[in-house]
Amino acid sequence: MCGRHQSLLQGKPTARSDTKHAIKHLTCCQRAAIAHQLTNCLTEIFFEDALKRASELDAHLASGNPPLGPLHGVPISLKDTFKVRGYDSSIGLAALCFKPAQENSVLVDCLLRAGAVLYCKTNIPQTLMALDSHNNVFGRTINPLNTAVTAGGSSGGEGALLAMRGSVLGVGTDIGGSIRIPAMCDGTFGIKPSWERIPYAGQEGGALPGLSKIGIPASAGPLAHNMRDLELFFSTVSAQEPWNMDVDVVPLPWKYSPSLQKKLRIGIVRRDGVIDPHPPILRLLDEVKSKLQNSDIQVVEMDITSLFSQCQSLANALFGVEGGNAMFDLLESFNEPLSPWLSTRLKRRKHMDLKQVQQLHGKRDELRKDFLKIWKDEHGEIDAFICPVAPHPVPPIDRFNGVSYTSSFVLMDYPAGVVPVRRFEKRDMQGEMEDKKPLGSWDKANRELWTKFDRSVYLGTPLCVQVVAPKLQEEKLVQAMSAIDDAVKGRGKMNAKL
Amino acid sequence: MCGRHQSLLQGKPTARSDTKHAIKHLTCCQRAAIAHQLTNCLTEIFFEDALKRASELDAHLASGNPPLGPLHGVPISLKDTFKVRGYDSSIGLAALCFKPAQENSVLVDCLLRAGAVLYCKTNIPQTLMALDSHNNVFGRTINPLNTAVTAGGSSGGEGALLAMRGSVLGVGTDIGGSIRIPAMCDGTFGIKPSWERIPYAGQEGGALPGLSKIGIPASAGPLAHNMRDLELFFSTVSAQEPWNMDVDVVPLPWKYSPSLQKKLRIGIVRRDGVIDPHPPILRLLDEVKSKLQNSDIQVVEMDITSLFSQCQSLANALFGVEGGNAMFDLLESFNEPLSPWLSTRLKRRKHMDLKQVQQLHGKRDELRKDFLKIWKDEHGEIDAFICPVAPHPVPPIDRFNGVSYTSSFVLMDYPAGVVPVRRFEKRDMQGEMEDKKPLGSWDKANRELWTKFDRSVYLGTPLCVQVVAPKLQEEKLVQAMSAIDDAVKGRGKMNAKL
Repeated sequence: MCGRHQSLLQGKPTARSDTKHAIKHLTCCQRAAIAHQLTNCLTEIFFEDALKRASELDAHLASGNPPLGPLHGVPISLKDTFKVRGYDSSIGLAALCFKPAQENSVLVDCLLRAGAVLYCKTNIPQTLMALDSHNNVFGRTINPLNTAVTAGGSSGGEGALLAMRGSVLGVGTDIGGSIRIPAMCDGTFGIKPSWERIPYAGQEGGALPGLSKIGIPASAGPLAHNMRDLELFFSTVSAQEPWNMDVDVVPLPWKYSPSLQKKLRIGIVRRDGVIDPHPPILRLLDEVKSKLQNSDIQVVEMDITSLFSQCQSLANALFGVEGGNAMFDLLESFNEPLSPWLSTRLKRRKHMDLKQVQQLHGKRDELRKDFLKIWKDEHGEIDAFICPVAPHPVPPIDRFNGVSYTSSFVLMDYPAGVVPVRRFEKRDMQGEMEDKKPLGSWDKANRELWTKFDRSVYLGTPLCVQVVAPKLQEEKLVQAMSAIDDAVKGRGKMNAKL
Repeated sequence: MCGRHQSLLQGKPTARSDTKHAIKHLTCCQRAAIAHQLTNCLTEIFFEDALKRASELDAHLASGNPPLGPLHGVPISLKDTFKVRGYDSSIGLAALCFKPAQENSVLVDCLLRAGAVLYCKTNIPQTLMALDSHNNVFGRTINPLNTAVTAGGSSGGEGALLAMRGSVLGVGTDIGGSIRIPAMCDGTFGIKPSWERIPYAGQEGGALPGLSKIGIPASAGPLAHNMRDLELFFSTVSAQEPWNMDVDVVPLPWKYSPSLQKKLRIGIVRRDGVIDPHPPILRLLDEVKSKLQNSDIQVVEMDITSLFSQCQSLANALFGVEGGNAMFDLLESFNEPLSPWLSTRLKRRKHMDLKQVQQLHGKRDELRKDFLKIWKDEHGEIDAFICPVAPHPVPPIDRFNGVSYTSSFVLMDYPAGVVPVRRFEKRDMQGEMEDKKPLGSWDKANRELWTKFDRSVYLGTPLCVQVVAPKLQEEKLVQAMSAIDDAVKGRGKMNAKL
C-alpha cells in the first residue's frame, strides 16, 4: 500500500491527454501528489484508475452520449473511512491494512453514478477520536497554511488536500466536529448534515455493527472551496434517491431555491457556557454581524447558554457508551501502540450499563425538545444562527481544545457548516480574556492557549464561523451560509439571486 | 374518573343545539356513549368540553372567521396513551390513575390547531403488551361485530368505537400491530406510519424516558372508515409542520396526488415463513389479486420468506431490551395483579446487556439493508405489497396468535395499513391446512385456531388485507390502499382520479 504510493507519485500517468476530463485529472492527480508530498494528506492513491475512468467518461461523451450526471468527470476525494472496492479502508490501523474492500460505501456508488472520478482517499487520526490527523500507518498530516498549527481532524487529510487545491470537492464524516474542525483549520467550506440526509452506510469506523444505534450516529458531508460546490454535492446526491440504497436516509428531495425564499433572520450565539472564546473569535462574530447588517439580513442576538452548556458532557457520555472496546481489540490484535497524543487520553473502559444508556437518551430527547424553542423569538422565526467553530483560533499541533461548539450540534442532529471569513492578522493578537475564574478544566486549558502562547503562532491561520440550522433543513443551512459568505465577501445583495 | 363516566352518560348534554358543529357533536357524543355502554371502549370521557369547544368553533365561524383548519369541528377520538391536559392517561394502570396530564401530547396540539374537537379517549390492554384490550381499571373492550371474538389491541377501544360509528377518525399507536390488529378485528381502515412521520412525543407508555431510542420506537397513526379520512389525517397533521414541535419528526410535507402518479405495481406476499395462514386468509389474497388484475393495477407475486422469517424473533428481542422493569415497577407500586392472559405470559426480566442490544441493532440494520432489495424485481419497481394482517381470521377472545405479520414492519419501519375486504362467510369455513410439521410453536398454535375450533365463530368477522410501502413513503401507501379499496369495491378505474 505505502510502497505503491511512491511508485505512483514518481511514475508518469498513462492516460491520453487529448481529452478534457483526462487532462483535468492529470492536473488534479499532479496537484494531489504535490499536496501529499508536502502535507502527507493521502492514504490510498488510485490515480491510474482515475485516469482510466476519466478517459472512459470522455469517450462516453465523444460517442454522443449525455453526461452520466452533474459530476461527470469531476474528481472527488474521500476520507479513508469510505470503502472503495479493491482498496483498503485501514483508517490508519495496522489490523485493517491489506484488506481491500469488497464493496463500495453507498455514497461512493452515488457519486460514481453521478459521473464522479475517484482518485484518492485521505488521512485521519488513529481511532478517529483525535483532532490531529496522525496515525502509525500513514503518519501525520501537516497544515499547508502554517506548519506550526494543526491540520485538524478527523477529516484532516481532506482539509489539507483541499487547502492545497489538490481537490475541488472532498467528502468527510463528522461525529464531534470531524468535518467542521479541518474545514476551520484549513480554511475551507464544509457541512455536517443531519445524519439521515446523506448516506453513511458501508463505512469503516473500527466499530462493531449497531454502535451508531445505541450511541450517536455520525454524518457524512462535503468540504469544498465555495458554497456552489457544496450545494452541488447535496443536489447531486439527493437526485440519486439514496434512500433506496441506505435504510437510514430519509426520502427528502433537495429543494434549494434561494430566489424563492424569504428574507433571512440569523441569530448570533457567542458562548456555549462551557468554554469562553478568545477575544479574536468574539470580535470575528461582531465583524460578521456588522457585515450581515449591511446586507439584506436581519440579525438577532441569542443567548442559549443555559441549554448549550448542557450539551458537551451529554455528547461525551453518548460517544463513549461502548467504552472503545472494539477499537482497543483491533489495536491489541496487532500490538499497535496508541499515538502519543491519544496515549495520555484514551483507555479501554467497560461498556455502559443499558439502563444508564437509556437515561442518557432520555436526557438527550428532553434537551432536544428544549432546543426546539430557540428557533423562534418574540419577533418571529430564526432561520439559522452563527457561532464559533471553536473557542480559539487554529491551535498548535496537538493542542486543539474541546469540541463543545461542534459536538453539541451532533447531539442535537442539526446541520452545521463552516464559512471561512479571513486570515488571523497581527491586530487579532490584541485583547485579553475577562479576568475571572475558569468555567472548568476545558475553559482553563483554553485560556492557556491565549495567555501562555506566543500568539504569533496564529498569524495567517483561517478565521471561520460556524452556521447552524434546524434538523434536516440543509437547504436552509446552505442558503444562510451562502448569504453569510456573500456578506463577508462584500457581494451583498448583488448575488442573492445567483 | 370512572364515576364521572356514569354521570356524563346519564346526564343531558348542555350545548346549544342550534349550531351545526354542536349538533354534530351531540350526535357523536351520543353514539360514543352508546358504543361505550355496549362495548366498554372508552376510558376518559370529556363530552362537556367537546360540546363547549364545538359551540366556540361554531361561534368562530358565525363571526365571519375562516375555519381553524381542515378539521374545524371534526370530532376525533384518541387512544388512552395520548395526553390531554386535565385528564388522566392512566393506560389502565392503577398507579397512573388520578394524575391528570399537565400538557397535551404534540399530536393533540396539532389536531386542536387544525380545528379538531376531542371528546374521549379509548381503551387499551394492561401494559399495552397484549392484543385484547383488557385492564383492571376499565375492564375489557368487546368486539361489536361479534362478541365471541376479540376487539384487538392495543388500540382496541378505538377499533370498537369506530366499528360502532362512535368516531369518524381515531388515533392509535402501533409497535407490534396495535393499530392494524384492531383495524382488522373491528373492520376499519388504519395506518401505522414510519415512526418519524407523525408526532408521537408526549405520550404515556408506562416506560422511562429514552426506551424508544435503545429498542424500537412506536408510531402514532389513524383509524377511519375510508381512505379519504386517513389521507385527510396525514395532510392535516403534516400541514401543521409537526417537525417544529416533535424533534423526531422529519420535515416531509405531505405530497399526495394520485392523479399525477404512475400506474401502480403491487406485490403479493403470502407467507412470512413463521406462521402459515389459514386457508381463507390465503384465498382472500387470491380474491384481491384477481380484483386488482381486473383494475388497472399490475400485480406481481413476491417470495420474501427468507427475509420475512427473520423478523419476528429479532423484533421480539428488541421489544424486550428493558425487560419490562418500568412497567412491573408501576404494577408492584400498587400491588396490581396482571390481567389473566398476561399473567401466564409476562414476567419481569433483567434488562439486556448493552453489547447484546448493540448486536441486535447490528442485525436489524443488516436485515433492513437486505429488505431494500425486495422493492425491485427484474421488471421494475414495486410500489407496495399486500400480505395478511394475521395468519388467521379474527380469533376468539384472548386467542390472537402471533404478530409476525405486523411487528415485522415495525422492525423494518415500513408504513403499513389495513384495508377491510369483506366479512367471513360460510364458504370461508372450507379448506384444510397443508398436512405438514408445524414451522414452530406459533405455527402449531395457529393450526389449532383452524383445526380445533368450531369455525362458525369466525362468521361475520371482517376479512382484511395488509398493505406495506417503503419507509416514510406514506403517500405511496395511501395511493396503493386507495387503489386496492377501489378494486375490491368494484370502483376500479372509475375513481382512480378522485
